[in-house]
Amino acid sequence: MSTIVVQKFGGTSVGSVERIQHVAKRVISEVEKGHKVVVVVSAMGKTTDQLLTLANAINPHPSKRDMDMLLTTGEQITISLLAMALQVRGHEAVSLTGWQAGIRTEPVHGNARITHIETDLLNSHLASGKIVIVAGFQGITETNEITTLGRGGSDTTAVALAAALEAEKCDIYTDVTGVFTTDPRFVKEARKLAAVSYDEMLELANLGAGVLHPRAVEFAKNYGVQLVVRSSMEEEEGTIIEEEVSMEKSLVVRGIAFEDQITRISVCGLPNELHTLSTIFTTLAKHSLNVDIIIQTSMDKDTTNISFSVKTKDVDETIQVLEQYKEHLGFSHIEKESNLAKVSIVGSGMISNPGVAAEMFQVLATEGIHVKMVSTSEIKVSTVVDVGVMVKAVEALHVAFKLGEESVERVLS
Amino acid sequence: MSTIVVQKFGGTSVGSVERIQHVAKRVISEVEKGHKVVVVVSAMGKTTDQLLTLANAINPHPSKRDMDMLLTTGEQITISLLAMALQVRGHEAVSLTGWQAGIRTEPVHGNARITHIETDLLNSHLASGKIVIVAGFQGITETNEITTLGRGGSDTTAVALAAALEAEKCDIYTDVTGVFTTDPRFVKEARKLAAVSYDEMLELANLGAGVLHPRAVEFAKNYGVQLVVRSSMEEEEGTIIEEEVSMEKSLVVRGIAFEDQITRISVCGLPNELHTLSTIFTTLAKHSLNVDIIIQTSMDKDTTNISFSVKTKDVDETIQVLEQYKEHLGFSHIEKESNLAKVSIVGSGMISNPGVAAEMFQVLATEGIHVKMVSTSEIKVSTVVDVGVMVKAVEALHVAFKLGEESVERVLS
Repeated sequence: MSTIVVQKFGGTSVGSVERIQHVAKRVISEVEKGHKVVVVVSAMGKTTDQLLTLANAINPHPSKRDMDMLLTTGEQITISLLAMALQVRGHEAVSLTGWQAGIRTEPVHGNARITHIETDLLNSHLASGKIVIVAGFQGITETNEITTLGRGGSDTTAVALAAALEAEKCDIYTDVTGVFTTDPRFVKEARKLAAVSYDEMLELANLGAGVLHPRAVEFAKNYGVQLVVRSSMEEEEGTIIEEEVSMEKSLVVRGIAFEDQITRISVCGLPNELHTLSTIFTTLAKHSLNVDIIIQTSMDKDTTNISFSVKTKDVDETIQVLEQYKEHLGFSHIEKESNLAKVSIVGSGMISNPGVAAEMFQVLATEGIHVKMVSTSEIKVSTVVDVGVMVKAVEALHVAFKLGEESVERVLS
Repeated sequence: MSTIVVQKFGGTSVGSVERIQHVAKRVISEVEKGHKVVVVVSAMGKTTDQLLTLANAINPHPSKRDMDMLLTTGEQITISLLAMALQVRGHEAVSLTGWQAGIRTEPVHGNARITHIETDLLNSHLASGKIVIVAGFQGITETNEITTLGRGGSDTTAVALAAALEAEKCDIYTDVTGVFTTDPRFVKEARKLAAVSYDEMLELANLGAGVLHPRAVEFAKNYGVQLVVRSSMEEEEGTIIEEEVSMEKSLVVRGIAFEDQITRISVCGLPNELHTLSTIFTTLAKHSLNVDIIIQTSMDKDTTNISFSVKTKDVDETIQVLEQYKEHLGFSHIEKESNLAKVSIVGSGMISNPGVAAEMFQVLATEGIHVKMVSTSEIKVSTVVDVGVMVKAVEALHVAFKLGEESVERVLS
């Protein structure tokens, strides 16, 4: 029996008539390898924006239910067009909306989670030799309400289908050729990785923005679905994402992630009490403000300072919320430092290599780069530095951890 | 208990953000009269054309299943936008696709008939005080396939919902203010009718093209649904369509229909046999060629001539098909006469007035108009004349049958 492959094409890949025809060829080439193919597609590039413009002109605060009703038409258009493109090339293809494909979700509009997939119809179409095309990003509740899966929804649809259908793999076609050691737009030595683990992918998520949504990676990890990130335009091997990348274990650091527009906020003169830390961050969370690195430094036994990094766009609102609760929190004043950047090294190998963080600091120090904040996890070390030296830091680390060398790619090929 | 009113707005009425907002106001004014309202909408004016352009660019002969999948997104967009427009004005509204609204159809793509409507969900939304917005033109089969109802589909959806929900009436909002005694673009004396019967409406269907699809009128007749054709732009009483228009019975002729682009085709020297007539028209029907008026004249006991009228655009194909079967049909030659027009008088009162056809011929003769073909039904007399005298014929008949006089409208007001 032939194996099932799930292919996912995002909005850019299906953004025009020509691109849909190109996608049809990619699908057919997989069929011709003898696989049963399930294709998941997003809305055509500009469709969603056009629909949002219409909605906003009518109601600046539309209900989430009606936004789901509106936006899910986008993928429905794509599935029918792709089916036509496959049929004109002599292939039997059946297009299915999210609800037709049996994708059941929680009763939440705008950001629902998939609860289960009824696979009977899908399996029967596959058994009869048809290419199955499924609208990504959408599902249906038990009461037949149309829902959407939120950001990264089509990736999640593809992974969930791969899990439910026990597919051999799930190919995520996108506008980059794979996952890189760092962002090739900034560092010309950046190299495409042959493979990364799910955890590394999660930590590298902000490399080449939008390559793969963290939620889909988590889903793939939970169900052991092998993912491949590859280009929809170029015929080139992508990057495999799977549980263990044992062949590459020797490589301690697999990639370097970075982002600018970081600001450090320090809340000074706080009472040194048991609940101070939780009170501050519970307050910020209630206002949907995300903080990243957190550092607490006690000045004396009575008072403490808490510093944390936020995205620069959230600074004003964060300070406003803190000032609002000043009396309750009991701090003396707030300080902030903008024009910062975060630079992180990522690699599952560093769990068993305690010297990696030290090596990172050494490299930065040698370059004369001052580290303002540090945060570590089992597979990541993050530092906050001035934005002006961000790329210099990334380049130095890329060299120091040998990410530009041939071996990185040769290991698995 | 308040009564249910179904309102239907076509593609022109919902063709822009401004028009959708206008429709919302029309819906609200009905709600404020104390009615429970179900709104049926078509796709926004240009949406269907844009989708067809995309489809044709990909596959010149797309499957009907995928055309249904594609085109039904059009109404889904409109229902969500109208719901948003009602919500921003403080009204609770729920948008439903055809399948969510329980509209079940035959398993036919592109031209399905409604088999039944599951009204539980609709009634429960209405009972909770919500305005229910339903996507017209679409339904679902027993195997969850998305279907469309073909031409006039949204009218049919509205009438079927009115029947299933036992609505008080079904208002068809369109770009004309009602049904006229004849086409006001050609005859300035044309007057709007206060009421017509279902049968008269069917015969007048081509007056002011697209006012109401014959299929929807038939459906309304079968289920006794009172229809009102009215303007979506102007606040003005429309035309009521119902079973018996007794108050106006005295008016023998209710309207004058006409169309140009008619050609007469004569098949000459046919064998005068039992099956000649059926063989010719079965052959043409197999090629989806519609003929209108048919006249048979026997020359002698062995041969016969058959004449019929067709739309001028179908002439070439009709003659081609006939020539193809020339040997089988056994005719000697074909004659044709183009530049003709059809002028018909319509009125249920003529059943009991046998002199009406004679009066029509008299009027035309007085005007020096030569009648080339005649066809009669119980409520209609059609004549074929030169296209050059078409409007002259209509004007003369409009005067002779007193259609321009005040009484026509005053009867029911």
